Amino acid sequence: MRHILIIGSGKSTSYLIWYLLDKSEAENIHLTIADITLDYVKKRTKNHANVSTIKFDIFDDISRKKLIKNADIIISMLPARFHIKVAKDCLKFGKNLITASYISEELQALNEAVTEKGLVFMNEIGVDPGIDHMSAMQVINRIRSKGGKMILFESFTGGLVAPENDTNLWNYKFTWNPRNVVVSGQGGTAKFLQENTFKYIPYHRLFRRTEFLEIEGYGQFEAYANRDSLKYQSVYGLDSIKTLYRGTMRRVGFSRAWNMFVQLGMTDDSYIMEDSEHLSYRDFVNAFLPYSPSDSVEIKFRHQLKIDQDDVVWNKFLELDLFNPNKKANLKKATPAQILQHILMANWTLAEKDKDMIVMYHKFGYELDGKTHQIDATMVTKGEDQIYTAMAKTVGLPVAIATLAILNKHITTPGVQRPITKEVYSPILKELENFDIKFTEKEVPYLGYNPLIL
Amino acid sequence: MRHILIIGSGKSTSYLIWYLLDKSEAENIHLTIADITLDYVKKRTKNHANVSTIKFDIFDDISRKKLIKNADIIISMLPARFHIKVAKDCLKFGKNLITASYISEELQALNEAVTEKGLVFMNEIGVDPGIDHMSAMQVINRIRSKGGKMILFESFTGGLVAPENDTNLWNYKFTWNPRNVVVSGQGGTAKFLQENTFKYIPYHRLFRRTEFLEIEGYGQFEAYANRDSLKYQSVYGLDSIKTLYRGTMRRVGFSRAWNMFVQLGMTDDSYIMEDSEHLSYRDFVNAFLPYSPSDSVEIKFRHQLKIDQDDVVWNKFLELDLFNPNKKANLKKATPAQILQHILMANWTLAEKDKDMIVMYHKFGYELDGKTHQIDATMVTKGEDQIYTAMAKTVGLPVAIATLAILNKHITTPGVQRPITKEVYSPILKELENFDIKFTEKEVPYLGYNPLIL
Repeated sequence: MRHILIIGSGKSTSYLIWYLLDKSEAENIHLTIADITLDYVKKRTKNHANVSTIKFDIFDDISRKKLIKNADIIISMLPARFHIKVAKDCLKFGKNLITASYISEELQALNEAVTEKGLVFMNEIGVDPGIDHMSAMQVINRIRSKGGKMILFESFTGGLVAPENDTNLWNYKFTWNPRNVVVSGQGGTAKFLQENTFKYIPYHRLFRRTEFLEIEGYGQFEAYANRDSLKYQSVYGLDSIKTLYRGTMRRVGFSRAWNMFVQLGMTDDSYIMEDSEHLSYRDFVNAFLPYSPSDSVEIKFRHQLKIDQDDVVWNKFLELDLFNPNKKANLKKATPAQILQHILMANWTLAEKDKDMIVMYHKFGYELDGKTHQIDATMVTKGEDQIYTAMAKTVGLPVAIATLAILNKHITTPGVQRPITKEVYSPILKELENFDIKFTEKEVPYLGYNPLIL
Repeated sequence: MRHILIIGSGKSTSYLIWYLLDKSEAENIHLTIADITLDYVKKRTKNHANVSTIKFDIFDDISRKKLIKNADIIISMLPARFHIKVAKDCLKFGKNLITASYISEELQALNEAVTEKGLVFMNEIGVDPGIDHMSAMQVINRIRSKGGKMILFESFTGGLVAPENDTNLWNYKFTWNPRNVVVSGQGGTAKFLQENTFKYIPYHRLFRRTEFLEIEGYGQFEAYANRDSLKYQSVYGLDSIKTLYRGTMRRVGFSRAWNMFVQLGMTDDSYIMEDSEHLSYRDFVNAFLPYSPSDSVEIKFRHQLKIDQDDVVWNKFLELDLFNPNKKANLKKATPAQILQHILMANWTLAEKDKDMIVMYHKFGYELDGKTHQIDATMVTKGEDQIYTAMAKTVGLPVAIATLAILNKHITTPGVQRPITKEVYSPILKELENFDIKFTEKEVPYLGYNPLIL
């Protein structure tokens, strides 16, 4: 019997646990799931012979060390800031570790020691980061092996509601942490490369500088730039690439409307509004508009944002009931972003039977034998319900598959790493196809950003 | 002989030193001017019998303590962050202190000890803060003494170029620290009160939410909101006021054009631009615009900012030579704000004979005997040249006058303070009138923000 310890049992672990339990007989494994609250996971694992749950606080050093020492491999699904505690224990007791989170600096600092001990600390192996790395590197390496030279890489991901449950005018529902959606794009200027030129977009312009994308069978999407487009330039070996852009996908029209919140200052999370608990939705909006004794909040909103009388964007705001003088968020000492989040959650929360959807779109431009080429690769996957979501599936399955691959010594190269080598991504992407997580590739003319001079 | 020690001899000390030397015989005073560089001050004070200069480093504890111990009163004209060292020594040796800077938290913390020792630590006694406090409190206290109740207070200040030297399309030249101008309004949302409603303006809207003001004989101005409109609400005793707004004055049209820099992200000081030393002015602008193989930087700029072909704002940018592909800022590891500052300094630097101008505009709305009233008070003062600037005059004279008043025991109430009591502001405002720094008051109908319902 091999012991897998899963620390953390939040929303993103449903598929992870299901997959490992499904394989538990064949693979001869036992799962121990440790978390501070277990109600959620107990409902899903009840009576399964190969799982035990244990209530546990990550700050309880003795319990944590004991659990890690007794396991054969550890999966940390905790919030990213807690991984380091687990990682240090794993290093001490010589255990392999898997997380779906970004590699923090302090985790990276363990690389030498981890490598020396021959351990595999696999990170960024969820969906984004995770499936994006693997699917991109598979194509990039294939292009290179043919002798191609990468000149463009663009990559877009979105967490959206499935088309059959897409019932509001924003074509959006919260499928993940709503707070991250409300503050998305804040904290720094977006920076990317277009045709060898560095380009910068400040937050307050981000949602008006979108690109359009089409996925066959799913229609049009738009994407706004991520702050960190250049983050993996070296990691992917793209140091001499001309165009490098990463973005977040939404349905067409979302960003133009969202920008109006940004313009007024309603997404600001940096200060507390006076008397926030007594502000009606209408008061909240009015706080960002000039005072007038006679003009309505509606006309001031339209005027400030230049919304014509016949502009359909207006209905998006009416749908949120944004001008209601009787509804209140009732939040004490709240920031604008917190109040906006409350208003949006009242409108954009998934209904019980709603399904979510993850979309991903890569563009690979390259030169081969003096000619330019482009491959577009797209992936769409939908959830089953509110437990078995597309998000949980695309985060949890790569983690689960990687865990078994490491346990079975199919992945052995040691170090603090992300899934960018063939050894890692090949078996995982192959197994993911069995769960309908697969990319559709299409050869398209390379246009780059120079269509007119071709 | 009474000894006045002036620590720091920068730009704002010309009038301060001149005034005190002018009075030195009558008042029986000797000035000691201490600074790390003295070239500037030596030129202006040479051979005067009642002044000595001493080269001195604020971090040299022994010299500093000795200088302070030997003086009767100390003026600190250092950058604000250095005052605390001087203040602690003044407290130790029982000396009064004058600064023109905002009271820092650590300075405020000395209040009890300063009061106990019967010392006067007078701060915020330059122009803004300084003359704004004094002139506002004089009118507010007068209104109160008649039984009036304050319902509106708005206060605007601007440092501009004198009309006779106003030679560019922006109607603006740098009369003070250019960096502060470039980043003005950053670092937080502007917050103020209008008719009992808290209003918030994010930075990227600040320069489109201006008010217009007219000063007789000087024409129209505009003002954008300061971040800290509510800062002195309690200090001024205005806790139940309905409208409270503080702003910065510019000539009409400046803010709309400036907003275009803000929109593109060219005022951002939070990150370093790639390859900044090699960017031409044109490259710099283009970094904030989408890539195009064919469209000019000019048309992209116009398109992004919706500048019509016949919009005169365009000439403001041409005047700056903003699209020149041959001019470079040549700044290594520079932020957008630093490069923009370089471009502006090439255009907005005062010529040798140019004069600056300080403008101030207060509005006082109040109720008396069931009726509403309003007083508008305005002040304009111009510099003589580039040494004896309006800025140096309005900063230095109040400091100098306060110093003599404290030395002569006309101001005696102890504590860490700002000039908001009659004891302080009355004699100082009176003396300032001799230097043509005076407010013109005008009774106007009280409109508040409710003109339509009067």
